[in-house]
Amino acid sequence: MIRIYGLSASGNCHKLRMLLEHLGRPYQWIEIDSFAGQTRTPEFLALNPNGRIPVLQLQDGRCLAESDAILHWLAEGTRYLPTDPWLHAQALSWMFFEQYSHEPYLAVVHSIRGMMAADSPRRMELPRLLERGRQSLAVMERHLGDAAWFSGPDYGVADIALYPNTSLAPRCGFDLAPYPKLRDWMARIEAQPGFVALPPATPEVAARLALPV
Amino acid sequence: MIRIYGLSASGNCHKLRMLLEHLGRPYQWIEIDSFAGQTRTPEFLALNPNGRIPVLQLQDGRCLAESDAILHWLAEGTRYLPTDPWLHAQALSWMFFEQYSHEPYLAVVHSIRGMMAADSPRRMELPRLLERGRQSLAVMERHLGDAAWFSGPDYGVADIALYPNTSLAPRCGFDLAPYPKLRDWMARIEAQPGFVALPPATPEVAARLALPV
Repeated sequence: MIRIYGLSASGNCHKLRMLLEHLGRPYQWIEIDSFAGQTRTPEFLALNPNGRIPVLQLQDGRCLAESDAILHWLAEGTRYLPTDPWLHAQALSWMFFEQYSHEPYLAVVHSIRGMMAADSPRRMELPRLLERGRQSLAVMERHLGDAAWFSGPDYGVADIALYPNTSLAPRCGFDLAPYPKLRDWMARIEAQPGFVALPPATPEVAARLALPV
Repeated sequence: MIRIYGLSASGNCHKLRMLLEHLGRPYQWIEIDSFAGQTRTPEFLALNPNGRIPVLQLQDGRCLAESDAILHWLAEGTRYLPTDPWLHAQALSWMFFEQYSHEPYLAVVHSIRGMMAADSPRRMELPRLLERGRQSLAVMERHLGDAAWFSGPDYGVADIALYPNTSLAPRCGFDLAPYPKLRDWMARIEAQPGFVALPPATPEVAARLALPV
């Protein structure tokens, strides 16, 4: 059976759970708390020298890092990866957008506000991160004016890549009112067979997220 | 003929020039100076609503954004993209690594030191960016202890994705002495048929890069 090393509350890791649940494919989930240093142990660095979750491990021990590369690998030959070369290229484009222009703002705002101490100096980064995050949501909203999905004519890998951190946005200070198509897109994803949501914030995280920016 | 909208001095854009020159494939290069606001015009935003270079435009007008998605598209069916699914997955993994853990440090150090004013407040970010950049180079060095390339047994897309900003590292303050395998890997790339280097720094950029960190 395949293994996923990941943190359940992480958007990057949750992508893999979403796809595996859609596929009904068995997997073993090994919880790794990156905030507690568990990605910096010699054992974990042997799996991924870059010290990041998630990691996929095959039955024979081979490992694959980077959430969107794992998602792409798991989706190959399924309805979640477009076979048309141009649609495939567009889906990959949105996955690179997600890792470069989306996750570094939305997930990082969530981490700084929800996981770090109330007096963390990193809170000074929040105004810029919130602004860049809103720009990213606006690019998505514009795309959804012409298309239902980010993976071609059907729901697929790029939607799964973009969903988790978008779904965390309201928790960590983004107002989604200006993005009605984005909210409809999220609702369509939540209606997919096998859909699984991110876990709710723990009381400690919720209390930190409630602090003003 | 295909068109590339890009900045010749940009590592992200240079990837595409490298692959197209290796392939001997004709293309039209349209110079876009992102530092002069040319990615924020209505005309450019119609090509890529995310306002970033490079963009590939097909003869029929269709556009593709994100440097590594374009690289992947251009490499399909050529010797530069592995066909074995696991090697393909590993190459994609290094391309996502490049966009998440490499380019945001090496290219951004180059931009801040080479393109921004000597009194830019963004220079305060340099110590952290240099440290993260060195971590990225160390991950590459470790990989090269077991393998000659990042794209499987042969030179390919992931090497092309990682090369340009690695080659800029010495210009912008990274000492490559601790990474002998990385230097050998760069030399092997520079010996490939059709290899084309990034343009040298202009006198203005070179003068800024010479300022102490």
